[in-house]
Amino acid sequence: MSKITFIGAGSSVFAKNILGDVMQTPALQGFELALFDIDLERLKDSEQMLLNLKKTSNSTCTIKSYTDRKDALRGAKYIVNAIQVGGYDPCTITDFEIPKKYGLRQTIADTIGIGGIFRNLRTIPVMLDIARDINEVCPDALFLNYTNPMAVLTNAMITYGGVNTVGLCHSVQVCVPELFKSLDIDTTGVKWNIAGINHMAWLLDVSKDGVDLYPEIKRRALQKQAEKHPDMVRFEMMLKFGYYITESSEHNAEYHPYFIKRNYPELIERFNIPLDEYPRRCVEQIEKWKTMREELVNNVNLEHHRSHEYASYIFEAMETDIPFKIGGNVMNTGGLIANLPREACVEVPCLVDRNGVQPTYIGNLPPQLAALNRTNINTQLLTLEAAVTQKKEHIYHAAMLDPHTSAELSMDDIVAMCDDLIEAHGDWLPQYK
Amino acid sequence: MSKITFIGAGSSVFAKNILGDVMQTPALQGFELALFDIDLERLKDSEQMLLNLKKTSNSTCTIKSYTDRKDALRGAKYIVNAIQVGGYDPCTITDFEIPKKYGLRQTIADTIGIGGIFRNLRTIPVMLDIARDINEVCPDALFLNYTNPMAVLTNAMITYGGVNTVGLCHSVQVCVPELFKSLDIDTTGVKWNIAGINHMAWLLDVSKDGVDLYPEIKRRALQKQAEKHPDMVRFEMMLKFGYYITESSEHNAEYHPYFIKRNYPELIERFNIPLDEYPRRCVEQIEKWKTMREELVNNVNLEHHRSHEYASYIFEAMETDIPFKIGGNVMNTGGLIANLPREACVEVPCLVDRNGVQPTYIGNLPPQLAALNRTNINTQLLTLEAAVTQKKEHIYHAAMLDPHTSAELSMDDIVAMCDDLIEAHGDWLPQYK
Amino acid sequence: MSKITFIGAGSSVFAKNILGDVMQTPALQGFELALFDIDLERLKDSEQMLLNLKKTSNSTCTIKSYTDRKDALRGAKYIVNAIQVGGYDPCTITDFEIPKKYGLRQTIADTIGIGGIFRNLRTIPVMLDIARDINEVCPDALFLNYTNPMAVLTNAMITYGGVNTVGLCHSVQVCVPELFKSLDIDTTGVKWNIAGINHMAWLLDVSKDGVDLYPEIKRRALQKQAEKHPDMVRFEMMLKFGYYITESSEHNAEYHPYFIKRNYPELIERFNIPLDEYPRRCVEQIEKWKTMREELVNNVNLEHHRSHEYASYIFEAMETDIPFKIGGNVMNTGGLIANLPREACVEVPCLVDRNGVQPTYIGNLPPQLAALNRTNINTQLLTLEAAVTQKKEHIYHAAMLDPHTSAELSMDDIVAMCDDLIEAHGDWLPQYK
Amino acid sequence: MSKITFIGAGSSVFAKNILGDVMQTPALQGFELALFDIDLERLKDSEQMLLNLKKTSNSTCTIKSYTDRKDALRGAKYIVNAIQVGGYDPCTITDFEIPKKYGLRQTIADTIGIGGIFRNLRTIPVMLDIARDINEVCPDALFLNYTNPMAVLTNAMITYGGVNTVGLCHSVQVCVPELFKSLDIDTTGVKWNIAGINHMAWLLDVSKDGVDLYPEIKRRALQKQAEKHPDMVRFEMMLKFGYYITESSEHNAEYHPYFIKRNYPELIERFNIPLDEYPRRCVEQIEKWKTMREELVNNVNLEHHRSHEYASYIFEAMETDIPFKIGGNVMNTGGLIANLPREACVEVPCLVDRNGVQPTYIGNLPPQLAALNRTNINTQLLTLEAAVTQKKEHIYHAAMLDPHTSAELSMDDIVAMCDDLIEAHGDWLPQYK
Repeated sequence: MSKITFIGAGSSVFAKNILGDVMQTPALQGFELALFDIDLERLKDSEQMLLNLKKTSNSTCTIKSYTDRKDALRGAKYIVNAIQVGGYDPCTITDFEIPKKYGLRQTIADTIGIGGIFRNLRTIPVMLDIARDINEVCPDALFLNYTNPMAVLTNAMITYGGVNTVGLCHSVQVCVPELFKSLDIDTTGVKWNIAGINHMAWLLDVSKDGVDLYPEIKRRALQKQAEKHPDMVRFEMMLKFGYYITESSEHNAEYHPYFIKRNYPELIERFNIPLDEYPRRCVEQIEKWKTMREELVNNVNLEHHRSHEYASYIFEAMETDIPFKIGGNVMNTGGLIANLPREACVEVPCLVDRNGVQPTYIGNLPPQLAALNRTNINTQLLTLEAAVTQKKEHIYHAAMLDPHTSAELSMDDIVAMCDDLIEAHGDWLPQYK
Repeated sequence: MSKITFIGAGSSVFAKNILGDVMQTPALQGFELALFDIDLERLKDSEQMLLNLKKTSNSTCTIKSYTDRKDALRGAKYIVNAIQVGGYDPCTITDFEIPKKYGLRQTIADTIGIGGIFRNLRTIPVMLDIARDINEVCPDALFLNYTNPMAVLTNAMITYGGVNTVGLCHSVQVCVPELFKSLDIDTTGVKWNIAGINHMAWLLDVSKDGVDLYPEIKRRALQKQAEKHPDMVRFEMMLKFGYYITESSEHNAEYHPYFIKRNYPELIERFNIPLDEYPRRCVEQIEKWKTMREELVNNVNLEHHRSHEYASYIFEAMETDIPFKIGGNVMNTGGLIANLPREACVEVPCLVDRNGVQPTYIGNLPPQLAALNRTNINTQLLTLEAAVTQKKEHIYHAAMLDPHTSAELSMDDIVAMCDDLIEAHGDWLPQYK
Repeated sequence: MSKITFIGAGSSVFAKNILGDVMQTPALQGFELALFDIDLERLKDSEQMLLNLKKTSNSTCTIKSYTDRKDALRGAKYIVNAIQVGGYDPCTITDFEIPKKYGLRQTIADTIGIGGIFRNLRTIPVMLDIARDINEVCPDALFLNYTNPMAVLTNAMITYGGVNTVGLCHSVQVCVPELFKSLDIDTTGVKWNIAGINHMAWLLDVSKDGVDLYPEIKRRALQKQAEKHPDMVRFEMMLKFGYYITESSEHNAEYHPYFIKRNYPELIERFNIPLDEYPRRCVEQIEKWKTMREELVNNVNLEHHRSHEYASYIFEAMETDIPFKIGGNVMNTGGLIANLPREACVEVPCLVDRNGVQPTYIGNLPPQLAALNRTNINTQLLTLEAAVTQKKEHIYHAAMLDPHTSAELSMDDIVAMCDDLIEAHGDWLPQYK
Repeated sequence: MSKITFIGAGSSVFAKNILGDVMQTPALQGFELALFDIDLERLKDSEQMLLNLKKTSNSTCTIKSYTDRKDALRGAKYIVNAIQVGGYDPCTITDFEIPKKYGLRQTIADTIGIGGIFRNLRTIPVMLDIARDINEVCPDALFLNYTNPMAVLTNAMITYGGVNTVGLCHSVQVCVPELFKSLDIDTTGVKWNIAGINHMAWLLDVSKDGVDLYPEIKRRALQKQAEKHPDMVRFEMMLKFGYYITESSEHNAEYHPYFIKRNYPELIERFNIPLDEYPRRCVEQIEKWKTMREELVNNVNLEHHRSHEYASYIFEAMETDIPFKIGGNVMNTGGLIANLPREACVEVPCLVDRNGVQPTYIGNLPPQLAALNRTNINTQLLTLEAAVTQKKEHIYHAAMLDPHTSAELSMDDIVAMCDDLIEAHGDWLPQYK
C-alpha cells in the first residue's frame, strides 16, 4: 500500500485541501494518508475531519495519525510538508514587534525581509531534522514543501538535506486568472509563461493567437490605479518594470525598497499597503477556528471540491504517467534561468509524470527582472549560509542585503535589531557563534 | 485560418501519417494543410491521397498544393519538414558505393559515418535556404524537422538558420514497447526515462513500482543472444555498456567501431548485421510504390488510424494547452545534458503546451554513455563546421573523427575517399575550398 | 614602427604618468606616441610636456599630435583611453545638482549611483564610436580603458564594440600597501589576492607565511575607528562584511544604502563622508591647472619617475614576454567569478605576456561579497541595456535598482529625477524613446 | 625551515634535475629537501648524489632521507611526486606483452591506450593513499605531480584526494623550441599559445609581430615529410588537423586510430613508428644505470645546470612573488576550455606567484582539436570511474572507448584482454567486482 505522509497535518484547512483532493483522485485510491503533527489535539481534529471527508468522498484511502514522526514517514512515497515553527505566538509576534521598535514596518514577513530571515532561521533546523528522518526511513520519497519561506527552505532540503524536493505555492496557477478577472479580460485561449523565484516570479509572456496582451493589460491597469484597490503595488511594479508578478501586493510591498519608506509615509495610503497584515490574519484565523472547527471536524456531511493545489495533480501524474505541468521551485542547477545564480532556488515550469518533477529550461530573464530577483536571492543565500554555518555575522549580512531593511535602517540598527531578535527567539534558534 | 506547411509532401506514406493524424485531431480542424514538393507528380499524388483521407475522416481541414515554396510557407504556424536531397539515385548509391571501394561497409548511412556526413553536406544548404524563406514569410512558425541526419540538420536550422525548430524521430516512443515486446515483458505501469543524442539516446531508467527492471531485461537479452535475431547489436551494446539504445541494431552497427571490422569479418554473421540495408530498402520501396500508389492515391475509401508520430500531438498540445511529453531534439544550451558539449543537439524529454516545446533538464549521463555520445557528436560538430565554412579540411576532420571510418581506414584513404565523394556529388554540393 | 595611441591626451597629468612611464621603458623605445584630444589647446600642452619629458628621459619614442581621431588610431598596437565626456561643466554639475534637488546626495558619482548612470549614458555612445574607428583602422589593437565608469564602459567596448579591451584602475595595486601603511603593518613577504568588480573588488586573502593577517588588520582597524580618519567607510564595511574593498571610503559611501541616509543624517559626520567631493576636486584641479601648467608644459627640466600605473608594464610584458600580473577588468565569460553574472565585467588577476591579457579563474566569492557585488552589477547591466536599446524605461530601471538611490527616493521621484537629468543633458545624450 | 618533499626520490636522474635546480635557486636556500622512496638502496643513492651536488652548488639546503612516508611529508610546503608503481618488471612488461597477444601493438603506453589504463589503475590507489597522508600531515602543501598518466592521476588527486595539485610535464615548454629547431626557424620574438590536455595540447597560435607562422611551418614540415625523421606522426597530425601537438610522435602514434593499424601495416614504416619503444627504453636505462650510477652517486665533482623543469620556477615564483607562467594540468572547472568536459583535467597556461597556481581562461578550442581531445578524455574519465568504483565493467568501458584499442580489436577481445591484464596484475591491483 502506497503512503502519503502529511507533516503538519494539524493545519486542518490545508490538510482538507490537499488530502481532500487526494481522496477524490481515482489514481490515488487505496493510499494510506499518514498524518503527523506535534500538536496532538489538532492532529486528532484533522484525522476526524478527514474521516468525515472519506465517507462523503467514497474514498478507499486509509487515514492514520502518528505520534512519532519517523513512523509517519516510514515507507512514504510522497510527503507533504506544511509545518510552521514557532507559530503566531510567540514567533510571528516577535518578527513584527521587534523590527517595529526600530521603525521597520512589515506586511507579511514570510518570504524575505527581517521577518522572513528569522522565519527561515527557526525553520531550517527542523527541516533538516525531518530530512535526516527521510534519509533513514523513506529515502526515495518525493517531498512537497508548502512551508514558507519557500525558496530558502526548499534550497535547504535539497542542498543540505539531500531530499528529493519540490517547493509548491499556488501563486503561479492563480496569477493570470486573478489578474484577468480583476481587469475583466477573458482568459480563453490565452497563453502564458511564468518563471523567476517564488513570490517574485514573472509573467514573462501573455498572449492570445500570437498577439501580446500586455499593452491592453497595462492600459487597464493604469486606469484601475486611479482608484484604490487591493493590488496596487503589483500593478505599480508592472507599470514600472514591465511585467506582472505572481505574488500579491501585500507581499511585494516588503520585497522592494519602494513602498514602505519612512521618508515617504504617504506611499502606504497611496498604494493601499496593509502594514502588519499577517499578524492580523493570524489573530483572525485563531478566532475563526473556534467556529470553523465545528464545521470541519464534527461535520459528517463535510464536502470537498478538488482545489487547484498542485499536490494531488502531481501524485496523479506520477501514478498515471499522464503529463501535468506545474510551476515548481527547484534548484537553478546548470542555470535553468541563466542570469540568476546557480545556487539559488528558482520557480520554473516543470513537467510531471511517472519520472517525477522535471524542470524546463528558461534561459535569460529580461535584465530588470533578473536584477530584482537577485536583490532577494542575495538575502536568501545569506540566510541559508547563516543557518548552516550558525555564524551570527551571516544573519547580519542577510539583513543588511535585504532591500527593504537596508533602505530603512542603518547598519548599526540592523545589527542591534538582529541581536534583539536572536535573544527574543531564545530556544527557537540554535546557538549562534 | 491557421496553416500547417509540409515540405517534402511527396513522401506520400509519411504525409499520410502526419497529415492523416492532423485531420483526425479535433483541435486542428479547419487548418489549412499546405503541401510543397519539388516533385510535382508526387505532390499531386499526395494531394489526391489526402483529399481521399479528408472525406473518410470527415475533416474540415483544407488541402492545398503549392509549386512555390515561399507561398507554401507564407503565414504558416507549423512546418513539417521531410525533404530528402539527392534521393536514392544518385546520392544514396554514391554514399554506399564509393566507400565500398575503400573497403568501408555501411548499413544505413543516414546519421553519422561517411554516408551521414555527405547526406548532411548536401542537405544543410537546402535547409538554410528554407530557413531564409521562413525568416521572411513566417518567422514565428514552429519547424518540426523529420529529415535525417537529425542532430546536425536540427542544429543547423537553430544555430545558423535562426528558426524555432525541434527535431523529431519516432525511435524514442517505440523504444520500450518494442524492447518489452521482443522480450515478452508487460509494459503496464512501467516508468522509463530516455535522453542522449538522436539515434543514440539511452534508456536511462526503466522500473516498475520502484524496482529496476534492467536485471531482468538483461537476463532475457542474454538468453536471446544465444540465437540469431534482428536486434543483436543493440542487445550487445546494452550488455557491454549497461543501457539500451533508442535506435535499431542496423543503425547502431555503424555508429561504433565494434561491429563492422575488416579484421573480424565473422562479426557480421554473428551479430546479424545487414550491410547495405538502406539502399536495399530504397530499391524495395521504389518497387513497392507502384502498387502502393494505387492503394493510397486512387483509393476513395482510404483509412487512417492515428499514428504515434509526435507531430499531431505537438500541434494538439499547443492548440489546447493540455501538456504532452515528447523526446525532442534541441540544442544543449546551458548544458541540459551536463556532460555533453553545449553546442551539440541533444534528445531530451520536452514538455509541449501552448508555450511550445520546452526541454527539461537532465544533468550528467553515466560516463560511458556520455563518452559514446561524444564520439558521434565529434563528427556531427565537424560536419556542421564543414557545411558552414565550406572548407574541405573540415569534411576530412569529420570523417577522421568518425569512430567507424577511422577504425577501418587510414587517414590517406579517408581523404581520398572524401575527395571521390565530393567529386561524385558534383552540383549536389556547393563549392568547397 | 609600433604605435601607442592616447585618446584624451589633454589630461596632461595622466598622460605624463602613462607616457612618461612608456618613455622610461627600454622595451618601448622607438614607439610612436600618438596623441589625440578634442581640446586642441590641451592637446598641444600635453605634446609640449611630453617633448620635454622625452629629452630628460633620453627616450627615442616619437611624439605626435593628431587632430583626426582615425588618423591617430590608424595602425595602433596599443590604445590608452582617458576621455571624459561632458566635463565638470556642465555634466558633473548636472550629475550632482539635480539629484540634490530630490534630496539625493552623492560623493563621487563616477561608478554607479545616479551620477554614474548618466556618466555612462553620455560616454557609451562616444566609446562605441571609437570602437567603430578601431575596427576600421587597427582591429587587432589592445585597448586599455582608464575612463570611468570602468565596469560598464569596458563591458560596452567588448560586448558591443567588439574591441580587445582591458579596463584598468590603480585601486588594485595600491590596496594592500595603503591599508598596511595606514595601520602601520609591514608588507614584506605578504601575500594577497584580490577579485570582484571594479571599485568593489575584495581583498580575499591577505596572509604571511600561511598566517591570516585579517585578525590583526581588523583589530587595528577597530581601534582606528575610534577616531576620525579618511577611510572610515571602508573600515566599517570590512568590520561588517569581513573583507577590505579596493576603492576608497568616499567612493564606497555611495555604492551602498548604508551611509548617506536621510533618516540617519548623523552618519555623514560619524563616518566622515565628504559629500560633493568630486565637484570640489574638479574645481580645485581647474584652479590648480593654472599653476601646474607652468610646471608641466613649459618646464624643460621636467622629470618623471615610473609610476605604478599598469599601462607601461602591460606593454612591456607584451613586448618582452616576461610575465606581469595585473588586476584587470574583463568579461566574466564562462564564470571566472562563478557566483557573479556571466554578462558582467569583473576585476580579476590577469597574466600578461606576449599572448596579451589572460584572466585567471577565481571560483566563488564568499556569499556576502558576491551579494554586494550583485547589487551594483544590477545597475551596471541595466545602464548598459539602456544605452544600447535607447529605451528610457531601462534608465529608470537602472536608477531604481541602484541601492543608494532606491533607499533614498520613491519610484516616482526616481523617474522624475531621471527625466530632469535627461532633459538637462540635452545633446550630451542621444534621443531616448 | 620550509620543506620540499620528493616522493619517488630513487629516480636519481629526475631528482637531480628537480632538486639540483632547487639548490641553485637563491629563494630556496635553507629549505629541507626530504627524500622518500620505497627502494631504500636507490633512495640512498639519490641522497648521496644530492649531497655531492649540494657541495658543488654551495647550497644551504638540507638533504634528508626518510623511510616513513608520513614523516617525509610532515609539514611539507611543496611535494614533488615521481613515483612509478609496478616498475618495468613486471608491470610494463605485462602492459605490452598481453595486448600483443591480441594483436594490439603499442609504443609508450603511459598516457591512454590499454597500457595507460592499467598504469592508471595500479597507480591511483597509491596516489590516493599519499593523499590521505597529505591531508593528515601537510594539508596546505602544493603537490606537483610528475607521474604519468598525468591527466588521470592529477584528476584523481584533486577530485578524490582533495589535494592542492598541479600536474607538470615538460612537453609544453620544449614544444616550440624543438619544433623550430627541427625546421631551422629562429624563435626570437615568437609568440605562442598552448592549451589542450596533457600530451595532446595544441600549439593554438604561433606568430611573430602579428604574422602567423603556421603557413611557413607547414611548408617546411611537408618538405621534411618526404624523408624519414623521428617526428613524422606529429607532422602528419599537424598537416591533417592544422595544429602542432605538444607530445612526441612515438606517443601520439597510439593516441589515435590512424597509425598503428593491422589493415595498414605499411604505416609503421612510413611514419617511422617505434613499436615497443618504452620497454626498449626501460631496458636501456636499467643497463645504463650501472655506469650512470658511478657518474652520479659517487662523483664528488658532480655538476648541474638549471633545467627547464617547472618545479624550481614554481617554488621560486611562490617564494618571491615574481610571476612565472607555466603550462599546468588543472581541473577544467567552470569550463576553462569551454568545449571540453568540465570534469576533465586540462593543460592550460597558469600564472604562478605567491598565490599559487592560477589557471587562465581559454574559451573554445578549434572544433577538430576539441574532438580529438574528447576521444582521449573519454578513456581518461572511464579509467578514473573504474578506479574509484572498482567496477570491472568500467575498465572494459575505458578500453572500448580508447580510439586505438577499439579500432583494432573486437569488444570480446577487448574484454578478454582486460581480464588477462587484471589477472596478470595480481596484487598490483585492488579487488575489482
